[in-house]
Amino acid sequence: MSFSEFPSRLLENAVNEFASLPGIGRKTAFRLVMNLLKRNPEDVRKFGETILKLREEIHYCSICNNISDSGICSICSDEKRDRSLVCVVENIQDVMAIENTGVFRGRYHVLGGIISPVDGVGPADLKIDSLEEKVKEGGINELILALSTTMEGDTTNFYLFKRLSKYNVLLTTLARGVAIGDELEYTDEITLGRAISNRNPYHQ
Amino acid sequence: MSFSEFPSRLLENAVNEFASLPGIGRKTAFRLVMNLLKRNPEDVRKFGETILKLREEIHYCSICNNISDSGICSICSDEKRDRSLVCVVENIQDVMAIENTGVFRGRYHVLGGIISPVDGVGPADLKIDSLEEKVKEGGINELILALSTTMEGDTTNFYLFKRLSKYNVLLTTLARGVAIGDELEYTDEITLGRAISNRNPYHQ
Repeated sequence: MSFSEFPSRLLENAVNEFASLPGIGRKTAFRLVMNLLKRNPEDVRKFGETILKLREEIHYCSICNNISDSGICSICSDEKRDRSLVCVVENIQDVMAIENTGVFRGRYHVLGGIISPVDGVGPADLKIDSLEEKVKEGGINELILALSTTMEGDTTNFYLFKRLSKYNVLLTTLARGVAIGDELEYTDEITLGRAISNRNPYHQ
Repeated sequence: MSFSEFPSRLLENAVNEFASLPGIGRKTAFRLVMNLLKRNPEDVRKFGETILKLREEIHYCSICNNISDSGICSICSDEKRDRSLVCVVENIQDVMAIENTGVFRGRYHVLGGIISPVDGVGPADLKIDSLEEKVKEGGINELILALSTTMEGDTTNFYLFKRLSKYNVLLTTLARGVAIGDELEYTDEITLGRAISNRNPYHQ
């Protein structure tokens, strides 16, 4: 079934909006719209309003750039979180992923992206100035550079290192190694090589 | 990454709304919401408003139940379409699929579903009374029962046949056979058997 002709302009507009989302093709968009049409109007009103509200009322934390319902996010306003330990991440998903481990008790700094010349993202597009500002102010002992292990992540790490190593702060990165549950024979050779070089004393 | 904790209630609500759509899991929902957050507010406002508008302003044609922007759909208001030939379909997608063939010059009647005891859909839930009304009024020579070739489609066909065969109207169904482009060895035996029984004289 192709969609050369829609019986309704409203329907067509709604399908176009959904199809503009990443990974949603026109057939899927159509299916989603038909699902909304079958619901009661109150439900659909709530759907539309939630989206409007999201974009218009969402805040970004003025300290760490994490998403927040108010000026300062729940992590930065939590006095029990260690101020001296800051984890630098690419985006909000990474904050959530690390929070879900339940292991980290410090705070975050969200860069809002990663240096990627291919996509036209340079250091000036990221929250690097404000990170340097924070480091300069003092009070931060350690900065964990928790970026992806990709070319872009490595570039960003290197840039941050060059820019921040002059301050009195310990720069660390996440441990690299064989993922827990992975079989050695299916681990790529770079990861495996790194895991051998960075071997740890055995402890139970 | 699981999503036990959201940094923002607005974000969580939006993810929940998207995740309520069929075939959209929470990770996909999150990805869609993050995409909306990166767009400019005007775009997102349009997205939300298009959805609100869809549900509140959409009409169903008072003649055929097809979707429409006004009281009567573009097909029913097209005087060039044959009034005496009516194609009975399950839903709007089917109307669009048949319209896209460019072959059919009659009109439609959308049942709004199919008889399915498993899903609790009986004849009274479908637009069957109004179909009988139309047939009774006269002017329709042929009714094409264009329903799916499933158990539910067959049940609905049978029900419609029992209810409408007493009127002076020709009831037909779509031709069944091997789909164009299909290889015989991969065609299921029921379809292939039907295609042999209903063989046609060869013509070039």
